[in-house]
Amino acid sequence: MTYTKYLTFCTKEKKQFVNITRTCQEIVDESGIREGFMLVSAMHITAGIWVNDNEYGILNDAMEFLEELAPTNKDYRHHNTGEVNGHAHLKNLLMHHQVILPITKGQLDFGPWQTVFYAEFDGQRNKRVIFKIIGE
Amino acid sequence: MTYTKYLTFCTKEKKQFVNITRTCQEIVDESGIREGFMLVSAMHITAGIWVNDNEYGILNDAMEFLEELAPTNKDYRHHNTGEVNGHAHLKNLLMHHQVILPITKGQLDFGPWQTVFYAEFDGQRNKRVIFKIIGE
Amino acid sequence: MTYTKYLTFCTKEKKQFVNITRTCQEIVDESGIREGFMLVSAMHITAGIWVNDNEYGILNDAMEFLEELAPTNKDYRHHNTGEVNGHAHLKNLLMHHQVILPITKGQLDFGPWQTVFYAEFDGQRNKRVIFKIIGE
Repeated sequence: MTYTKYLTFCTKEKKQFVNITRTCQEIVDESGIREGFMLVSAMHITAGIWVNDNEYGILNDAMEFLEELAPTNKDYRHHNTGEVNGHAHLKNLLMHHQVILPITKGQLDFGPWQTVFYAEFDGQRNKRVIFKIIGE
Repeated sequence: MTYTKYLTFCTKEKKQFVNITRTCQEIVDESGIREGFMLVSAMHITAGIWVNDNEYGILNDAMEFLEELAPTNKDYRHHNTGEVNGHAHLKNLLMHHQVILPITKGQLDFGPWQTVFYAEFDGQRNKRVIFKIIGE
Repeated sequence: MTYTKYLTFCTKEKKQFVNITRTCQEIVDESGIREGFMLVSAMHITAGIWVNDNEYGILNDAMEFLEELAPTNKDYRHHNTGEVNGHAHLKNLLMHHQVILPITKGQLDFGPWQTVFYAEFDGQRNKRVIFKIIGE
């Protein structure tokens, strides 16, 4: 069995984490799938998906860390196209654009602090995420 | 068909790689699944899973590389909570907390040097990993 | 249902991106699988798989970014074995060696700019990639 859903995110900030854990569980519930894998994958190439702790300091540390490694205000080759979001493609590279969430007995099978975040690096516009479940 | 197993790791060192390739194959054997995917995913947010070569130099290069990018002794915002492991969350970000291992004819379908490591960044305490297989 | 295929890449350059999006879709077509997941995973430990935009500037930005973080001409511990590709193992760490592509109605279920790349970090020799599909 498979189940597919798409959601659109438009963040208030250019760079922002959005906690989508409850959304993921709701999609599992809708699907009726009790055992399997859920792929959560950004369909745009300037966003990521991250599983970590829902702690304010960590989220800020992570965004600052990515900003230090791939600064927003740097002159990337990509900007020759007229775009100004070269940094967001490199942040995507570091964070990765997808995760697989295990589903066991109809629940996201998480450790005590695991939280799923949509990580926006070039927001304030509509961007889609695919949630696809395979299982039984 | 799905098969799920949890293992607990308590490393001797704070930062350590643990070769879990044989463990993964044993779980495939137990499952009886001959074709499919095995998710190996850290359930804690200060550890990673990495597939690379079981070569002493590489493992030390990798840990040193992560230490340079996300130093242990830095004052992270996360430390305002009383925690002191901010670095380990960022190392998790870089390495990623999970891999999918292909299973073909009942075997991990690996290239010649591929080895699966549990990568601990804040050890000396019990931490769980989920192994979940889906296939036929 | 599962379907497995292996392809061998031998790039002209030592470091090079190869657009494999069409190849991935052809393998989906061959498989006859209409709904599921395709794992695309490098079987060597000095290559990666990346989903991003097929834009010349981005690809050059990404390779330069990885080169800055893990320089080719640095004296890694791994080189004590006689190897000279320590940098490529660290680039693999950052980019990750695999992705899961969602398949919906027989098509790679991608956003508007998503393109799949084989990322070679130590090329000019034969290296394999596994494509494995699970679905219905």
